[in-house]
Amino acid sequence: MKNILLISVFCFLISAGTTAKAQNADSIAIKRIFTDALTDTTSYHNLRTLTGSYAGRLAGTAQSMKAVKWAEQLLKGMGLDTVYLQECKVRHWERGTKETGRVISAKAGNHELVICALGGSVPTVANGLTANVVEVKDYDELKKLGKEKVSGKIVFINHPADPSLYNTFAAYGGVAGYRVRGAVQAAYYGAIAMIDRSATTSLDNFPHTGVMHYADTVNKIPALSVSTLEADELSKWIKADPELKIFLKTSCTELPEAVSYNVIGELRGTEHPDEIIAFGGHLDCWDIGQGAHDDGAGVVQSIDILRLCKSLNLKTKHTIRVVVFMDEEMEQRGAKAYAEASKKMLDAGYWMLDKQNTSGTAHPLTQPYRHVAAIEADRGGFTPWGFSIDGTDNQVKKIQSWKNLLLPYGLFFFEKGGSGVDVGKLKEQGVPLLGLVPDSQRYFDYHHSANDTFKAVNIRELQLGTASMAAMVYLIDEYGL
Amino acid sequence: MKNILLISVFCFLISAGTTAKAQNADSIAIKRIFTDALTDTTSYHNLRTLTGSYAGRLAGTAQSMKAVKWAEQLLKGMGLDTVYLQECKVRHWERGTKETGRVISAKAGNHELVICALGGSVPTVANGLTANVVEVKDYDELKKLGKEKVSGKIVFINHPADPSLYNTFAAYGGVAGYRVRGAVQAAYYGAIAMIDRSATTSLDNFPHTGVMHYADTVNKIPALSVSTLEADELSKWIKADPELKIFLKTSCTELPEAVSYNVIGELRGTEHPDEIIAFGGHLDCWDIGQGAHDDGAGVVQSIDILRLCKSLNLKTKHTIRVVVFMDEEMEQRGAKAYAEASKKMLDAGYWMLDKQNTSGTAHPLTQPYRHVAAIEADRGGFTPWGFSIDGTDNQVKKIQSWKNLLLPYGLFFFEKGGSGVDVGKLKEQGVPLLGLVPDSQRYFDYHHSANDTFKAVNIRELQLGTASMAAMVYLIDEYGL
Repeated sequence: MKNILLISVFCFLISAGTTAKAQNADSIAIKRIFTDALTDTTSYHNLRTLTGSYAGRLAGTAQSMKAVKWAEQLLKGMGLDTVYLQECKVRHWERGTKETGRVISAKAGNHELVICALGGSVPTVANGLTANVVEVKDYDELKKLGKEKVSGKIVFINHPADPSLYNTFAAYGGVAGYRVRGAVQAAYYGAIAMIDRSATTSLDNFPHTGVMHYADTVNKIPALSVSTLEADELSKWIKADPELKIFLKTSCTELPEAVSYNVIGELRGTEHPDEIIAFGGHLDCWDIGQGAHDDGAGVVQSIDILRLCKSLNLKTKHTIRVVVFMDEEMEQRGAKAYAEASKKMLDAGYWMLDKQNTSGTAHPLTQPYRHVAAIEADRGGFTPWGFSIDGTDNQVKKIQSWKNLLLPYGLFFFEKGGSGVDVGKLKEQGVPLLGLVPDSQRYFDYHHSANDTFKAVNIRELQLGTASMAAMVYLIDEYGL
Repeated sequence: MKNILLISVFCFLISAGTTAKAQNADSIAIKRIFTDALTDTTSYHNLRTLTGSYAGRLAGTAQSMKAVKWAEQLLKGMGLDTVYLQECKVRHWERGTKETGRVISAKAGNHELVICALGGSVPTVANGLTANVVEVKDYDELKKLGKEKVSGKIVFINHPADPSLYNTFAAYGGVAGYRVRGAVQAAYYGAIAMIDRSATTSLDNFPHTGVMHYADTVNKIPALSVSTLEADELSKWIKADPELKIFLKTSCTELPEAVSYNVIGELRGTEHPDEIIAFGGHLDCWDIGQGAHDDGAGVVQSIDILRLCKSLNLKTKHTIRVVVFMDEEMEQRGAKAYAEASKKMLDAGYWMLDKQNTSGTAHPLTQPYRHVAAIEADRGGFTPWGFSIDGTDNQVKKIQSWKNLLLPYGLFFFEKGGSGVDVGKLKEQGVPLLGLVPDSQRYFDYHHSANDTFKAVNIRELQLGTASMAAMVYLIDEYGL
């Protein structure tokens, strides 16, 4: 590409935002928001620190507590009106010594496996286990094999994510269930361990972990994941020698539940301090990666909205609140604690009965408040497309009516749909929920793997996520839902 | 992000394509196109070979001729109806020994500069030159300094690309002129060399090269580019010591013009073999990089459209033609040769007078033909947004009427605008032109630098570009323009 100025794109981006004269003030405000976000590097540096110094910050671990301290100190240094911790109890699972997986076969050769334990898995016995393997593509194949052919063996569920689906979340959704429930199904037929193909369309050598669940009705068996390339190899080795054995050794531990925290920071609203526009991402991440796209990006973007509002002296009518959630990956205990606190304040209902009871200095943890909206950023720090909206048809239409203001910044997607599991717990309280929707193509290259690192994040794509959410916060503050 | 299936995105993507019953056959065809592209890795492997074995393939060089052979052989192995070379004469500029730049200052220290010669630059004298430096932000500042303060010095034009612009092509367009014309302006005031700040918003240590032009009216002076981070440093050093000197040594050579080629491959149309839908990218790239995004991606995507059509047994009514252009970066001599050949065939006009004269076996280089449309892919192998359209209002409207068929694949942008400099030369022949428009955020991180490598290309984003163009070719073939 030489010296082409893409006049088409340029004019489109400019004109789309300025057609209606009435929208002019909003256009200018949103242009200021994007300019600030695209010229300020604070969030990128915050992400560098979070991923570099607090990698592997799974809930319950010492590392996650250091990250909580970091987030608290960061918010306290920003000159906000309030910064506080919100307690929650979390599971504390640790991987222990790096896991070993080894193929043992005279015919197919001996091979070390690129493998990792799934989150929440029990360990193997201390010296490891060795057993024959059965490969299945799905539960139907498992059922056909039955207890006779599965009992005492390792079940290898090799179901590739479908790369032909445009949206990678759909491809992921089609296979993630094998990771979550595969061990239960395998144990039902008497398997002594379960190995799952990593839940990604990416063909690489990174095993992708993620939470798995047990059931009380069957044995708890060790559950692991092999990389997608390794899954292809393993399948070939099994074909070459159906009698091959696999040696597995893991030393995962489930420790007592730990006290942890959501980290919350606020700028108080000028007109409705008791009405909250909340936004956030989750601080915890899988222990094997840096948690850059999942979800360091969402955390630093959400925090950056407050920096940006201060920088632009953008005083909102409603209180704006960042929520840095704990424990999204395992059990969403932070989300539960947050929703419970919100419910309590909502039930108190003072804000409905008597606005006099609240004041600009009220502390949301002890004074009643309600949410105007809540936005979650937990789909990676990629170029934003827009928002999915979990609200009434009228709320969806209202947000869609702002489209021309946002199209100049590539935001074209404003559709009804799920928001995210952290803010999702506010749904029963009637809170309109939004999820930031970025381009999904690269997300599962990194997701839940050692490949999810700072260097995989592009600074502009990250900054645009901040700006998109800040613009949405501005519009909700200005026009309500 | 845990186990969320983005139902919103998913439903949006599905429903947008299937609303009109009449569009059902097209929806199915386009779904087949995307499925094939997203599940076939040929183009990715082709890109690996092109960038790995034929890096730095600037027009005129031996490397570019090897790349021509590679492209020809690749097309010949695909079972196409026709593969041929189209001759063009190209400039042959070579960088020579890697350039040296050094700051010499007792006050600010001595520093090696991260620097490269611009494409087409004359060399310094054999032993290099040493001179004082004046830094300017633009031509106004240069004019104010005047001949007295500039004469005998090196002009350093330090104009940062504006990161606040959403579209990075606009940011690039705002500064690329300094690279192209800076040496002429500096020489006018008596400068003996020009150093330009790399034309990118990215703050990195890669100098970005690109073509520069001279004028007959002023001296031809060496023109170089420093990385953006180095430009910031150099500016500080100059402030610390306005009398600092810079040593520059380059050994660029302008060799005699060379014979080179466009590489063309076709699948003959079943109904209108003499009417062509053309698409392409350019094979040449800057000598300091692998030319992965610029424009290896466009080349392999365009070639892959033909593979895809054969794979799906998708027989088009019109002839579909890939044009692998030579010499986009310097003078677009390939584009000129292609347009001239097209003009000749168009002027012959047999296809208008007597359709009998053409047949399915006609060879387009010797038999009359006309273009139905031409599409260029030269903006990087990133997630596609849609197309810019250089055509009549009715043609734009017609393409926009297909939007609902393409929105399921994230294609939302169909606006009037420039296409690309290679197909652009067909404009005066009245050919409707299109340019593939991908997400622009990362492009200038790589553009014209050693950072433009294979590993910077994501396989899915690359595949989606192929599919988007193939879908557009399908619709143009089906409904015309």
